Amino acid sequence: MLARGQTPEAPPSARDQTRGGPLTASEVKLMNAYWRACNYLSVGMIYLQDNPLLRRPLKPEDAKHRLLGHWGASPALSFTWIHLNRLINKHDLDVIFVAGPGHGAPGVLGPAYLEGTYSEVYPEKSQDAEGMQLFFKQFSFPGHIGSHVTPETPGSIHEGGELGYSLSHAYGMAFDNPDLIVACVVGDGEAETGPLATAWHSNKFINPVHDGAVLPILNLNGYKIANPTILARISHEELESLFKGYGYKPYFVEGSDPEQMHQKMAETLERAVEEIRALQRQARQTNTPTRPRWPMIVLRSPKGWTGPKELEGHKLEGSWRSHQVPFGDVRQNPAHLKALEDWMRSYRPEELFDESGRLIPELRALSPKGARRMSANPHANGGLLRKDLKLPDFRDYAVQVDTRGATLHENTRPLGEFLRDVMKYNPTSFRVFGPDETASNRLQAIYEVSKKTWMADLRPEDGDGGELARDGRVMEMLSEHTLLGWLEGYLLTGRHGFFHTYEAFAHVIDSMFNQHAKWLDISKNHVKWRAPVASETILLSSTVWRQDHNGFSHQDPGFIDLVTNKSPSVTRIYLPPDANTLLVVADQCLRSTDCVNVIVADKQKHLQFTTMNEAIAHCAKGIGIWKRASTDADAEPDVILACCGDVATQEALAAAAILRERAPDLKLRFINVVDIFKLQSSTEHPHGSTERELDGLFTPDKPIIFNFHGYASLIHKLAYRFKGQDNLHVHGYKEKGNINTPFELAILNETSRFHLVIDVIERVPKLRTRAGHLKEEMRNALISNLAYAHEHGRDRPEIADWVWRD
Amino acid sequence: MLARGQTPEAPPSARDQTRGGPLTASEVKLMNAYWRACNYLSVGMIYLQDNPLLRRPLKPEDAKHRLLGHWGASPALSFTWIHLNRLINKHDLDVIFVAGPGHGAPGVLGPAYLEGTYSEVYPEKSQDAEGMQLFFKQFSFPGHIGSHVTPETPGSIHEGGELGYSLSHAYGMAFDNPDLIVACVVGDGEAETGPLATAWHSNKFINPVHDGAVLPILNLNGYKIANPTILARISHEELESLFKGYGYKPYFVEGSDPEQMHQKMAETLERAVEEIRALQRQARQTNTPTRPRWPMIVLRSPKGWTGPKELEGHKLEGSWRSHQVPFGDVRQNPAHLKALEDWMRSYRPEELFDESGRLIPELRALSPKGARRMSANPHANGGLLRKDLKLPDFRDYAVQVDTRGATLHENTRPLGEFLRDVMKYNPTSFRVFGPDETASNRLQAIYEVSKKTWMADLRPEDGDGGELARDGRVMEMLSEHTLLGWLEGYLLTGRHGFFHTYEAFAHVIDSMFNQHAKWLDISKNHVKWRAPVASETILLSSTVWRQDHNGFSHQDPGFIDLVTNKSPSVTRIYLPPDANTLLVVADQCLRSTDCVNVIVADKQKHLQFTTMNEAIAHCAKGIGIWKRASTDADAEPDVILACCGDVATQEALAAAAILRERAPDLKLRFINVVDIFKLQSSTEHPHGSTERELDGLFTPDKPIIFNFHGYASLIHKLAYRFKGQDNLHVHGYKEKGNINTPFELAILNETSRFHLVIDVIERVPKLRTRAGHLKEEMRNALISNLAYAHEHGRDRPEIADWVWRD
Repeated sequence: MLARGQTPEAPPSARDQTRGGPLTASEVKLMNAYWRACNYLSVGMIYLQDNPLLRRPLKPEDAKHRLLGHWGASPALSFTWIHLNRLINKHDLDVIFVAGPGHGAPGVLGPAYLEGTYSEVYPEKSQDAEGMQLFFKQFSFPGHIGSHVTPETPGSIHEGGELGYSLSHAYGMAFDNPDLIVACVVGDGEAETGPLATAWHSNKFINPVHDGAVLPILNLNGYKIANPTILARISHEELESLFKGYGYKPYFVEGSDPEQMHQKMAETLERAVEEIRALQRQARQTNTPTRPRWPMIVLRSPKGWTGPKELEGHKLEGSWRSHQVPFGDVRQNPAHLKALEDWMRSYRPEELFDESGRLIPELRALSPKGARRMSANPHANGGLLRKDLKLPDFRDYAVQVDTRGATLHENTRPLGEFLRDVMKYNPTSFRVFGPDETASNRLQAIYEVSKKTWMADLRPEDGDGGELARDGRVMEMLSEHTLLGWLEGYLLTGRHGFFHTYEAFAHVIDSMFNQHAKWLDISKNHVKWRAPVASETILLSSTVWRQDHNGFSHQDPGFIDLVTNKSPSVTRIYLPPDANTLLVVADQCLRSTDCVNVIVADKQKHLQFTTMNEAIAHCAKGIGIWKRASTDADAEPDVILACCGDVATQEALAAAAILRERAPDLKLRFINVVDIFKLQSSTEHPHGSTERELDGLFTPDKPIIFNFHGYASLIHKLAYRFKGQDNLHVHGYKEKGNINTPFELAILNETSRFHLVIDVIERVPKLRTRAGHLKEEMRNALISNLAYAHEHGRDRPEIADWVWRD
Repeated sequence: MLARGQTPEAPPSARDQTRGGPLTASEVKLMNAYWRACNYLSVGMIYLQDNPLLRRPLKPEDAKHRLLGHWGASPALSFTWIHLNRLINKHDLDVIFVAGPGHGAPGVLGPAYLEGTYSEVYPEKSQDAEGMQLFFKQFSFPGHIGSHVTPETPGSIHEGGELGYSLSHAYGMAFDNPDLIVACVVGDGEAETGPLATAWHSNKFINPVHDGAVLPILNLNGYKIANPTILARISHEELESLFKGYGYKPYFVEGSDPEQMHQKMAETLERAVEEIRALQRQARQTNTPTRPRWPMIVLRSPKGWTGPKELEGHKLEGSWRSHQVPFGDVRQNPAHLKALEDWMRSYRPEELFDESGRLIPELRALSPKGARRMSANPHANGGLLRKDLKLPDFRDYAVQVDTRGATLHENTRPLGEFLRDVMKYNPTSFRVFGPDETASNRLQAIYEVSKKTWMADLRPEDGDGGELARDGRVMEMLSEHTLLGWLEGYLLTGRHGFFHTYEAFAHVIDSMFNQHAKWLDISKNHVKWRAPVASETILLSSTVWRQDHNGFSHQDPGFIDLVTNKSPSVTRIYLPPDANTLLVVADQCLRSTDCVNVIVADKQKHLQFTTMNEAIAHCAKGIGIWKRASTDADAEPDVILACCGDVATQEALAAAAILRERAPDLKLRFINVVDIFKLQSSTEHPHGSTERELDGLFTPDKPIIFNFHGYASLIHKLAYRFKGQDNLHVHGYKEKGNINTPFELAILNETSRFHLVIDVIERVPKLRTRAGHLKEEMRNALISNLAYAHEHGRDRPEIADWVWRD
């Protein structure tokens, strides 16, 4: 194999940090042999279902029917892995590995198998010929494991099927893990995505005293699926400038000759690790953290490194043609079969594996032992390290509610005080993440305990309300992608956190939510050895109904629609109607594991409807009748008025108040929903209700007027198995808005109290005939309130008063 | 006002490009006066509802009740605008302006008003005191205009409510507009987002021969809502390196003293424009385009520049406190009222506006005239410039279908041939955009006419299938954000395009879709002077049902769910079942305006079901009975078997074939849906059906088994007003998947032919009792097919054959 690849991809130049290098000839030989074993396994995974050790000539039927997987990125991943192993052994380092080129799973699975971890968690994939055969066959094979670094992969907490999040995940892992080094291989394809392009700036948020370090290794293998990559096709000067501009000290390891590359990588990686440790030592000794220029490495190596140089006149190694399966017709075309056999034999498996098929002892000796193996590092199975949060009693943060429906509070402000103390009691395992909006979302009490992390320059004026600190643990940056990536990395390594964002712009991270939910679903339900991690809790605030000046672009309550598409096993959604219910829900979310919890609660001043005791009782059920607002006296109602969401609840209560006064003989049942999955059947969601429960609440045949925070269709979607579905009339947001006062927006979308009253009148036979005057009055009220807002630029002050109260 | 701001934010240094500067004292005076007028208007818009010219002392009731808007970014926007005006006049330039800090609308609205455009499109906002009063009051006032650069703003095609897309929009505008300069002000908050961070690389896709230029102006005003920005708090060296690394030649204009800043900006902007023109001239003369280092400008100026220095001990100018409304209590607090009056009078409005309230002639003379005004540039109302595409006859690309259900074709391949010729006939007004997946999505025929744009380095091996070219018009980069931003900019300036991406990762651009749909909704329905632009057509390929090796992370058909949340006026969704229907639909989409068209069609080999004539007839209806697969002989059916989507249709047809053979007396009606909005009521969507139409198709009372491409709930959502809804049983994707063969995946999600047959048996009374053996057989078929896939790694070859055919 050494005969191949003698022409370096980039010629050695004055920039090379090494000529000879730190490794002895025997070390090079051993490390290269280990790498040959890795590459052999990579090719075997992609191509073979039998004859794993090539102990007999390769036959067509040894190959899989469908050849799937990605060879291109794999060799550089295992190359990096092996060099990290050397340093882990030498310095007893605690290192975890993030594979950005997630399609290069063979490059990670190989080392995990060779160092024994794979067989420990999947005993049938034993370290012998039989195990290797199963290990090969399962790869990208129906019903088995994927070609990404999926949750089934020991040592992985980053799948990378969708590209863009490796680096933010890596930084999230490093926060509050002072002894950890996160080695993050970034693919040059992935590097073109927006989320990755801004994640480089995460180095402005790493504190060398109490955080660990991230060592980014940009692998320039030059190609994506079918195109060169941008970063591989700009000048060296531009590339170096770019990373200096991002605040790093870039090192370059470039070439293709394995022997030279081993020396270069060994020297450069060691220098980088030494710099990291020196920077940390210095900061920790003086306890005056500044922002270091952390090292990063550019590893420029051929795509499909060590693979066949060419076939049938097409360049393979060093070309996009090596991205996936370099050639595919091995079952039909003898020339292809021979090329495969030559390729695999070029790694000389007979020198690498013993009679039984196990890696020979000299090579086994190269890998770290026990938990020092990157494939077995407990940080990569963070649930093992997770400790429950020390939570203050959320009751202590309750707002006082003497007269229900009379006091105004910003619903999220007490939550901020609660989170402040969560942070106080868990100073190294809890962080809050939000895009520049912690104060905007009224959570600023947190700053009393921890400021915002800021390792970039400070100025004197920051002292006046800037709330910045080197040792802060509130994370703010104007990138939802980076923040959520950090949080996911933080959670998956066993810690806890809280994310908040503007409701409409949660869609920025739709795809990240999808991927995390899928990760959790598989981890929780299909990977037994993964211990539960803390749930990801997302508060959506600055909601659609209070976008007085931001207008139409900031109005979108549809993130929760997306959430309901994912596995019920890992999805939870709460819409607490007021401050106390929000506290109860938040406490519950922070105690939960292996879920994504979404809480929708606005930050503006809202009427308060529940005492803390009522809030606890109500949230325990998740859905319930509010007797205080009902007039059915526990008997059969004429109509059900239901609601979900803070503003929706206010309007429904106002409608109930109007009806109580103006239609006193109406038997109205008032229902509030906090846990939206209560509307689903218990056969579909663990929080769902039985048919009997739903019938008991909503009746099977009475009209239900439902006022909802979001798009009306979501309620129909959840309730569609419910018998009373035909009687269900949902009001919700319907993309009618602009610069509007809150009440004007409710009117435009027909979620106002007046609309609800009109709808009740129209649906209840006994009102329909005799409440014409009330209907007329409601219509006039709509018109006059719109006119008032239009003239005065605000709602009538008395609108807030005209709500049901004790 | 000149007395303020004498302390520069950053001290002048050796880096300053100018000392004296190119402007005469009188030019500085005039330009600064114009800027004073802009700033005066900005403050007026935010604060006042009356007394616009301060012709009497300011009273509390002159101020609005609710003070909303963003002062902080506005002064630098109008400052830049005025300096661009000077160069437009001097060199007769064609320039459009993109305001990245979208919240700084006052900084754009002011110039648009002063140069007369605003009054031309909104005559009541006339250029006099009365008009100015209305102009002030409407801003951020309920029912009027927003505080972003919304569609109502002449000269704007970028709202910026959600941040991150200014630069990709700007590049999209510049493609194929060789004489245009797009001046794009990027906010330093926005610059932290992922989409913006990677959009800088767009310079690798601009061809100086046939494209225009983008001049990015990064405005470092230092603060976001409540935090400093990262780019304002790194060293000058890092900042300069970063932009050199991105491939630009950065110029710096830094300071706060207006007089000095006018000189610096005038000199720097002129130098940048001259460089742009020289680079273009050189490339065009030699016609050998290389990638120039295009200039960009860093404008470092104080947040809230020229605003009050401080109030009540807090720094205002140059602080985050200036981000929105610097102080708010003007109706209650006389000190605040006085501060406001002093601030506004510091601009000396009496020197700027004449008796009637119009800008004085000396200042009016400074603005460009007619279409040269950036607020009136026709490119910013692209519908005016749009010409219909010259379309080849899509029938010419039809696949031959002799026996329906027997031939296999990659559905998207003929579309690629059609798009190839669209590109041929429209060489400067049509582009195709996709993330590295044009060939993967089988559209590679396009390369016969136009290669992929690539201005970064080329290598000899690119000749072997690289398909790269300097003058290509196929746009590929691994950033869905950048690509869609380019397309939006391209469409909004009057051109045409086509976007394609992997279905699951369309969620990456969920939020961009939302924003574009909202822009179109307002433009189409509320802004009369905007001419219709070409629709945005998005093909989702590599769909959920064919993720054989990518697995779970690549399975998400929910993008279309999101689409149905937006205004029916601008949303269209098509799921053509085969290649010919895809051609018909694509032709229709490319002819349409002011919509987002989403087409879902897989790229793999699929059975073909319609001849071209049938495809045309079927797509014209959007939904229809396939008599060939029905056995109800136009009479009342026992059951309806409906389907939507390519794989879903195949399985439904196979089920129909099984039933025809095994339950010959069953009267089955087979319905296929192409245009999914046909399932909605015509009262809700322009493509919707009447109640009678739906009843006629589906019957009001017969069981309907519906096999759907996406999440089942979407069908219920659309059809929920339909009487037969209770009889509707939808099969769709339910997050059950991993590495699976196509048929295995259908089985896991219960969308397979066998599941459909079982469901029909269970829902049709006459079968329920006597088709037990068939049901049993179907169950066995499920098990044996799963086992086959599990053992062989592929589906039984005969599965593809067992489909209904002629």
